[in-house]
Amino acid sequence: MTRVSRIAPALAAFAAFSGSSLAAQSGADVARSYREAHEPEIVRDFAELLSFPNRAYTPEIVRAAEYIRDELLEVGVAAELLRIEGASPLVYGELMVPGATRTLGIYVHYDGQAVDPSNWTNAPFDPTLYTAAIPAGGQRIPLPQDGQAVDPEWRLYARSAGDDKAPIAAILPVLRSFRESGVQPTSNLIFFFDGEEEAGSRNLTQYMEENRERLDPIDIWLFFDGPAHASGRPQITFGARGSGSMEVTVYGATRNLHSGHYGNWAPDTGNVLAHLLASMKDDDGRVLVEGWYDSIDPVGDEERAALAAMPDYDGELKRELGLVRTEGEPESLAERLMVPALNVRGITSGNTGSLARNVIPNQAVASLGLRLVRGNDPRHMSQLVVNHIERQGFHVVRDDPDMATRLRYPRIAKVTGGGGSRAARTTMSDPFAQSILGAASAAADRAFGPGSLVVAPGMGGTLPLTPFTELLGKPAIIVPTANHDNNQHAPDENLRIANLWYAIDLYAALLTMPLTVF
Amino acid sequence: MTRVSRIAPALAAFAAFSGSSLAAQSGADVARSYREAHEPEIVRDFAELLSFPNRAYTPEIVRAAEYIRDELLEVGVAAELLRIEGASPLVYGELMVPGATRTLGIYVHYDGQAVDPSNWTNAPFDPTLYTAAIPAGGQRIPLPQDGQAVDPEWRLYARSAGDDKAPIAAILPVLRSFRESGVQPTSNLIFFFDGEEEAGSRNLTQYMEENRERLDPIDIWLFFDGPAHASGRPQITFGARGSGSMEVTVYGATRNLHSGHYGNWAPDTGNVLAHLLASMKDDDGRVLVEGWYDSIDPVGDEERAALAAMPDYDGELKRELGLVRTEGEPESLAERLMVPALNVRGITSGNTGSLARNVIPNQAVASLGLRLVRGNDPRHMSQLVVNHIERQGFHVVRDDPDMATRLRYPRIAKVTGGGGSRAARTTMSDPFAQSILGAASAAADRAFGPGSLVVAPGMGGTLPLTPFTELLGKPAIIVPTANHDNNQHAPDENLRIANLWYAIDLYAALLTMPLTVF
Repeated sequence: MTRVSRIAPALAAFAAFSGSSLAAQSGADVARSYREAHEPEIVRDFAELLSFPNRAYTPEIVRAAEYIRDELLEVGVAAELLRIEGASPLVYGELMVPGATRTLGIYVHYDGQAVDPSNWTNAPFDPTLYTAAIPAGGQRIPLPQDGQAVDPEWRLYARSAGDDKAPIAAILPVLRSFRESGVQPTSNLIFFFDGEEEAGSRNLTQYMEENRERLDPIDIWLFFDGPAHASGRPQITFGARGSGSMEVTVYGATRNLHSGHYGNWAPDTGNVLAHLLASMKDDDGRVLVEGWYDSIDPVGDEERAALAAMPDYDGELKRELGLVRTEGEPESLAERLMVPALNVRGITSGNTGSLARNVIPNQAVASLGLRLVRGNDPRHMSQLVVNHIERQGFHVVRDDPDMATRLRYPRIAKVTGGGGSRAARTTMSDPFAQSILGAASAAADRAFGPGSLVVAPGMGGTLPLTPFTELLGKPAIIVPTANHDNNQHAPDENLRIANLWYAIDLYAALLTMPLTVF
Repeated sequence: MTRVSRIAPALAAFAAFSGSSLAAQSGADVARSYREAHEPEIVRDFAELLSFPNRAYTPEIVRAAEYIRDELLEVGVAAELLRIEGASPLVYGELMVPGATRTLGIYVHYDGQAVDPSNWTNAPFDPTLYTAAIPAGGQRIPLPQDGQAVDPEWRLYARSAGDDKAPIAAILPVLRSFRESGVQPTSNLIFFFDGEEEAGSRNLTQYMEENRERLDPIDIWLFFDGPAHASGRPQITFGARGSGSMEVTVYGATRNLHSGHYGNWAPDTGNVLAHLLASMKDDDGRVLVEGWYDSIDPVGDEERAALAAMPDYDGELKRELGLVRTEGEPESLAERLMVPALNVRGITSGNTGSLARNVIPNQAVASLGLRLVRGNDPRHMSQLVVNHIERQGFHVVRDDPDMATRLRYPRIAKVTGGGGSRAARTTMSDPFAQSILGAASAAADRAFGPGSLVVAPGMGGTLPLTPFTELLGKPAIIVPTANHDNNQHAPDENLRIANLWYAIDLYAALLTMPLTVF
């Protein structure tokens, strides 16, 4: 394994600057030419990557990791699987560049959300190509043959197509094109592909600690994850919300009861849960949990300026999503992402549709999703929700109540989960952040035209940023590329091919950008 | 086919009274002796009956009907299947008694509720015997062999064990015992076994109209359906609530959205539905839908007296069901069944538990169950619910909204279903009703001790009574026998063997009762 070499800053700056300004042009051009010459092959390779089931902690995810490692090895990356007992493998790789003075850490996660195949149009690990999004009338077509024209509006459907295998499918052809044409990246590259992100990255900290000396040389982390701006413009993002989840169960009788024989007398669990959920948030989307908005770190001037400069896309987004009304109007989506959210992820009680029966279900369950901003402590925020439930008259338990408990309390709620991850935000005035912002901005100018880069102080979703920003102490910046309507975390997840092309352009530009001296 | 013969009233009264007072004793004794000598066989036969899948309109239900017809033929009933194209068969049978002057119609339904096998301990059509109720620690045991003692506390688990195949399993050994011992029923018997009750008995009226001349001789209908009184005492019931169901869907974006990227901005469908459901009924169980309690027929003096005489079993029932609190306290369960109910049968939105994902579901669905009392018109009551939803600010549609509709209305609810069946109540002072009440009361006295019969003016559940009471114009009385905790309409439906023995005793007594002259 090559070690990262550190040379004197002055010389490093010179070498990097003079060497890379030439490589920059050709690197981006080389990757684009390569892509244009190999589009069907790149799409087929992406489909192959997506065919590997990738739920964290399953036996199958190891095969996905091995496949990715082998692909990295083939394009010249010194790749290996890091292992911790009981954890999903971490795909680690290094590409050391003679004379490079900066090291980029590249974070991607190759695991995916759980799937409920019954809700998918096609099997989630049987990647299928459509001429457009399915709800827009897309038709299923076979994967393209060599020589066939690839329409950038095509979409490839599979779990993790958008979140988050697309960056792997994009970085591989970039590195392949560089290798074939002798292009050198302007930075050392360290690849760190997480296999547990959708399951809470439980072993990420230990992976970092066990490989601390390999990670310490990294100057800045790039997160290739999340959807690009809804307008289709490239985006760079300086933070992400934290997240947590809780599950609330309310109880009626010990068993389902016939709705005729007991209806009007037995507690109506669906109605009991409805009263509880309605008490948590008003009709306008304002969370009514006491203290919910009290621990938010104030938003700084730079962030405020960035928010103001963001494109006003809400109107178009609402039209696309079929919405007249949004929560917290008239605030914009970007503004709403700077405050903590409390949403109902799911409700289960009895059945609906053809399985509905004449029962009063014995319980009703709601899964709550929390999204936190800088300043929010996950345990504290969960506790506020518990306090609120108690304030509605419920006796809160952690396990299903026994008979004695049932016969003691008129209203019982089981609450499980809680806690979660903190939000992270890299301060925009940080010099490392400014450096990468300048480079990404230039790359975006080249690829999409002047001023195309959207700069967001924070994204709504959650990434495991705190281990990077707090444990490793390095800035982390998110460079998303997936189409905003990729259905991530949901059935029929997909990637628009144009967004794969965008990722290839962007990564090629970032990897060969001239490094700013500071 | 034998025709029902009508003889002169005076002679008939004499013949019936003198002939049956002897037969009554021996009939009840004969059936009980037969049962005691054949308990393992009767349990095994019941299990065989339960092994036939019986969802209305499925191809398999025809086999269930054929099996029942053949069993009836074997005990001397002139049985046949009546057919209507596209309908489940109706199992029709006659047992004509020389000299009998009264004709009893016996209604049972052999179809069952839909099953979701994933929620059952065992497969719903693989009848399994337990030493007690499963939640009470019952252990699975094999079906009994001849000569083995049968514990009356055993329970047989399968769909329709309680609702409503048990009466079929009880009437067959009664008729077999009569046949073997030469006992004659004191009435002509007409069996009318419905195969669509759990699906709304959509063809029942047509079956009646096509067989009107066979049904007109019936003097009174006995409904063998529903659970006995929760105290375990025998019960007779003079009415049933009507029922209806509606399904309400509220909409967010056109697709599921990532709860991070859109949380705090996208409509939170679970919360929207919660507000709507909470608006329909208050915390104490009072329905808030305008006009809900306005069309109730006043409860008469006889019904009021019967209600007052009913055993006070609520306290015990609450302890058994693990409830401290019930809707509409301090009113009793029996009183609460005299007013219309509105319950949440099920809620579906996103997922909970291990399948929960970080999404804001694009819709949330609630299935509502209505239970109606005499005076309520089903269409009118459904319309009141629709009016209420509109009053909450929703634009109500009957189909999924198109994009233009979505972009026009801030709140949209799809409402399907509605209508349903009216309640029926046989006036307790009716002479036919008084006759059967006296007979059942005597039978109950003999089988369970003096004064054991619980007389209920109405049951909470729904039976297709109106075709009998309105189309045929005959009184209908409900004689339930299943254990009250039989989990009907729910997973792990079961019958307590003691309740099967009770049904055998009761039917034998009813079929050989001396007929009151009037």
